[in-house]
Amino acid sequence: MADKINSDVHLALVHYPVYNKVGEVVTSSITTLDVHDISRVTKTFAVNSFYVVTPLKTQRQLVERLIEHWMTGYGAKYNPTRKEALLTTRVTNNLKETIRDLTERCGQKPATVATGARRFPKGIGFHQLREEISTGKPILLLFGTGWGLEKSILREVDYVLDPIDGIGEYNHLPVRAAIAIILDRLLVR
Amino acid sequence: MADKINSDVHLALVHYPVYNKVGEVVTSSITTLDVHDISRVTKTFAVNSFYVVTPLKTQRQLVERLIEHWMTGYGAKYNPTRKEALLTTRVTNNLKETIRDLTERCGQKPATVATGARRFPKGIGFHQLREEISTGKPILLLFGTGWGLEKSILREVDYVLDPIDGIGEYNHLPVRAAIAIILDRLLVR
Repeated sequence: MADKINSDVHLALVHYPVYNKVGEVVTSSITTLDVHDISRVTKTFAVNSFYVVTPLKTQRQLVERLIEHWMTGYGAKYNPTRKEALLTTRVTNNLKETIRDLTERCGQKPATVATGARRFPKGIGFHQLREEISTGKPILLLFGTGWGLEKSILREVDYVLDPIDGIGEYNHLPVRAAIAIILDRLLVR
Repeated sequence: MADKINSDVHLALVHYPVYNKVGEVVTSSITTLDVHDISRVTKTFAVNSFYVVTPLKTQRQLVERLIEHWMTGYGAKYNPTRKEALLTTRVTNNLKETIRDLTERCGQKPATVATGARRFPKGIGFHQLREEISTGKPILLLFGTGWGLEKSILREVDYVLDPIDGIGEYNHLPVRAAIAIILDRLLVR
């Protein structure tokens, strides 16, 4: 078991506004596997909450039903590791609501950090963000589904995290993989 | 872009023999999303081949069809980043066949490294395995689906990689997330 750094990190998986493959701004669909995978990863790294963010009411209901299934009754008994992972998973309408909820829960506004595959002027490196995190102040990491967070979000956030450098030019990590790597880099080593 | 260390790393996703939730030895089903996700992750970290290993003929055919769809014709045009990721993806029957294929391709037998959520006597740490990798000799990393690789595999391999330490006791990372973190730890930093 790794040492817990003094952290108050939260994560949001954003389904709008994001880009699609051809650069249009869209609302992406919820992938239920994302909800399970990312819940397990956030639980592993002691992230304090995982927000699934979508403006589509039916999609929010889908996630709420999924959480309810695994938290109570048959699902909770069938696979308790799913239940445990979903304890901190929440559903919100948009980023504003997410930040408001978090501000109420933490007693202060979180610093917002966007992630993505490109480098930006207000970029923050992994080492520097790790130092910010270790001060213990609340941090909200934003991940875009589809082809990434729309530029209005990148303008509004406090920081944009430097991209994950792989080896070579290929630059298309699934969001599930990017979240795993980023949390491991920020919270464990 | 990170520096490429002088590596010849390969990866196998094993669907038999693995454990299920109650500790029985089973053949797990192929998850097509695993094939896409892990192909993208291996491409990102310049892993030289990704073997999908299953004894079930219909499942191997499913993956072969999937690869063909994205490599040629409509799929290749619709999403070229999938095509590029799948270039090194292969399908094999069992581990023996995988090692034989790799030995032929590399001109020498690869060192085999099992991964999992538990610590073993013949465990190798991330730092030590990184050093092995940087010698340039071929290394085959084995990942188990379901609830992990069966013990006969752990006995036969050259090394068992130490588990990923999270924060706290929770120890149920999805295999997709574990692969992303392990490749990042071994090949980038």
